Amino acid sequence: MAVKHSVFDFQAPEKDLRNDDLLRNQLFEILRKYHTRGPVVSTELEDGKSCLYIFVGKDGGHWTLRSFPTGLVTLDVMQCGKEESGEELSVNKDQLKCLAKEMCNALLPVKSLHLPPINRGADINTYYPTLDDLLIQYDFDRLVYETNSPHQNIKVLHSMQFGNVLILDNDINLAESDIIYTKTITGSGREDFKDKTILILGGGDGGILNELLQFSPKFVTMVDIDVDVINCAIKYLRGICGDALDNLSGEHHKVHVDDCVKHLQQYITEGRTFDYVINDLTAIPVTKEPRGSLWEFLRLILDLSMKVLSPSGKYFTQGNSHNKPDALLMYEQQLAKLSCPVQYRKEGVFVPSYHEKWVFYEIWKTDQSPNS
Amino acid sequence: MAVKHSVFDFQAPEKDLRNDDLLRNQLFEILRKYHTRGPVVSTELEDGKSCLYIFVGKDGGHWTLRSFPTGLVTLDVMQCGKEESGEELSVNKDQLKCLAKEMCNALLPVKSLHLPPINRGADINTYYPTLDDLLIQYDFDRLVYETNSPHQNIKVLHSMQFGNVLILDNDINLAESDIIYTKTITGSGREDFKDKTILILGGGDGGILNELLQFSPKFVTMVDIDVDVINCAIKYLRGICGDALDNLSGEHHKVHVDDCVKHLQQYITEGRTFDYVINDLTAIPVTKEPRGSLWEFLRLILDLSMKVLSPSGKYFTQGNSHNKPDALLMYEQQLAKLSCPVQYRKEGVFVPSYHEKWVFYEIWKTDQSPNS
Repeated sequence: MAVKHSVFDFQAPEKDLRNDDLLRNQLFEILRKYHTRGPVVSTELEDGKSCLYIFVGKDGGHWTLRSFPTGLVTLDVMQCGKEESGEELSVNKDQLKCLAKEMCNALLPVKSLHLPPINRGADINTYYPTLDDLLIQYDFDRLVYETNSPHQNIKVLHSMQFGNVLILDNDINLAESDIIYTKTITGSGREDFKDKTILILGGGDGGILNELLQFSPKFVTMVDIDVDVINCAIKYLRGICGDALDNLSGEHHKVHVDDCVKHLQQYITEGRTFDYVINDLTAIPVTKEPRGSLWEFLRLILDLSMKVLSPSGKYFTQGNSHNKPDALLMYEQQLAKLSCPVQYRKEGVFVPSYHEKWVFYEIWKTDQSPNS
Repeated sequence: MAVKHSVFDFQAPEKDLRNDDLLRNQLFEILRKYHTRGPVVSTELEDGKSCLYIFVGKDGGHWTLRSFPTGLVTLDVMQCGKEESGEELSVNKDQLKCLAKEMCNALLPVKSLHLPPINRGADINTYYPTLDDLLIQYDFDRLVYETNSPHQNIKVLHSMQFGNVLILDNDINLAESDIIYTKTITGSGREDFKDKTILILGGGDGGILNELLQFSPKFVTMVDIDVDVINCAIKYLRGICGDALDNLSGEHHKVHVDDCVKHLQQYITEGRTFDYVINDLTAIPVTKEPRGSLWEFLRLILDLSMKVLSPSGKYFTQGNSHNKPDALLMYEQQLAKLSCPVQYRKEGVFVPSYHEKWVFYEIWKTDQSPNS
C-alpha cells in the first residue's frame, strides 16, 4: 500500500472560515463531492482564531482542512492506494487539479499552491534532501542492489535520467551520469597525468581510476576500505568505473582494499611520494576506529597527504555544498592549520545527481622543500 | 507567519497502535514532551483498523499521528512560526531529530523517513515541480522582480547557487548559471556561426543572442513577443544576456519585439532564408491568438521555420524532459508530418536550474531543393 499525501495552500486573508458559515459549507460541499465523508472532526483551536476539520475518504485516507489566523487555509489529502502496484487512487491527479480550482473559486486566495503528492511509506524512498536541507524528490524507480557491508549500507537505485545511483548510508554518492564530478575532482582537464604517480584515497566506485587510466599515468594507487563498494561498482556502476576495476592490479594501477590512513603512514615511513593525491573519501569517515571529530579526521588526512605529496604535487578533494558557506569557510580554516603552508583554489560545479552545486578544492604546498 | 510542516513516516508492521495501550501512551508521552497538548482528537477510522490523533502545539500548530492498516504510522507536525522574520520555531530542527529518534525507539520500525519541513503559506514559493511531477524545492531567498506583461507573469527569483532565475507563468525558464542550456541549443560547439545568418524565435532572455554574437555571425535576427522579458533580462539577468540586449539593433543583430509567426510569414513572402533557425519559444505559446492545439502550434512553427531555412541549414530547438518519453515521441511524430522531409538528432543534458535532464533537437531538411 502507498499513501499519497497531496498538499494545498490557499492564502485568503479576507476569509474567515470559522465565522463564515456559507463559505465553510461551500468548502465542505466541495470536499464531499470528492467522495469524502464528514467532517468527522470539527474543532476550533484554542487561539480562538483558527479551526480544523477532518474528512474521511472512501479509501480510508483522511483529509485535513485547516485555517490559520493569518488567512492561510491548508488542505492535506492523504489517500490510500495501491498505486505502486498499478491500482488507481480514488481521486486522481486531474481530479485534484479540479478540486484545487474549486477551492480557489470559493476562497479567492491572493495566492495558492498545489504540490505533487508526497509518497508516504513507499517501498522505495525517493526523497533525499540536499546538504542545505532542501526537499528533493528523485525519479528512482527500482532498487538494483542493497547490502550492509562491515562499513556501511550500500544501495544502488535506478533513475531514468541518472542511470544507476550509488547511495552510501542514505547519502547520494555518485550516479552513472555524474562524469562532471570525476572531471572536476581530477582538475577539470587542466592537469597532464601522463607518466605521473597518483594516489586515490577512497574512490571505491572506480570513477577516478577509470578516468585517470585514460591518460597514461605512470602508476595509480588506490586505497579504499570497502571491497563491497568495489564489487558493487564492478557489477552495477559500469557507467562510472568502466572496466577499470575488473582487475584490481595491472601494469599501471593497484587497488588496495584497506584503511587509507595506514597506507599513508606507511608511505611516509618509506619516503614514497606522489605527483597527485586525490581524496575521494566520503564526507563522514566510515572507519570504525575513533579518530576524534570529523574536522580532526579531515585534518589528519590532509596532513598525511601533504607528507606524501611531491613538492610540486597537487591534492584534489571534493569539499561541500556551495550553499554551505560556513562549512566551506571552516574547511578553509583547517587548511591554515596544516603542518605545512598550502595554497588552494576552489571550483563549484552542479553535480546532477546531487541536485546541488558542489565545491571542489585543489591544494598545493607553497613551501616546496621536501617533507617540510 | 510561516507554517512549517514536518513529515515523519514509520513503517512498523508488527505494531498495532489501536489495540496497544502501552505503545499508544508511550507515543503520546513523547509528543507531550515536545510541548503539545492532547490528543484533543482521538478517532478510530471506519475501516476499524486505523486510528488518528490530533495534538495541538503551544504555537497553535497541530500535530497529526495516524496509523494505517499496513503498519505505517505517520506523524505530521504543523508548526506556526515567524521564521521568515527570524523568530525560532517552538520545536527546532535538532529537537525534531530527537523526536524522530524517540518515535523509532518506541515503534521499532523496519524503516523510517523524516523529510525537511515543507513551507506552507511562505512569502516566496520555493517549490517548482519538474515536468514529470517530482517535488523539487529551490533555494530561492529573494524576489528580485515581478510584473505581469500583456503576455505572461514575469518573475525573477534569486538563488544562492543559480544566481537570478527567470520564471515565466510559474515555469522555471532559465537561470544565470544555465550556460549549458544556451550551449546545447546552439549545437554544443559543433557549429561554426562565423558569417552565418541566424534567426532566433523567442529568446527574450538574450542568452542565445549573447552566445552567438561572440562567434562573428553575419547577422542575427531575433523575434520575441514580450518586451518586458527583454527589459527584465537587461536589468536582472546579465549573467545570461551580458550586454547583448543593451542595443536592440547593431551591425550584426536586430531584435524585433513582435509575434514570430508574422515575421516568419513575411520572410517566406520575401524569399528570405537563414543558415540557422533557433527556436527558443516557451513550450506553451504565449500569444493570445487562438492557433489550435499546442501540437498544431508547434507544427506551424516548424513548418514555417523549414521554409525560411536554407537548404543546408539547421534548426535547433529545446524539446522536453528526458523523463517524458511519450512527449518526446509525440514531438518526433510531428516531425514526420512536416511539409518537407527532415532528419534529426537529439541530445539530453541536465539543466541545473530545471533540476532535470532536458532533451534538445537538431533538425535539418533531407530534400535539399529550395522551398521544398
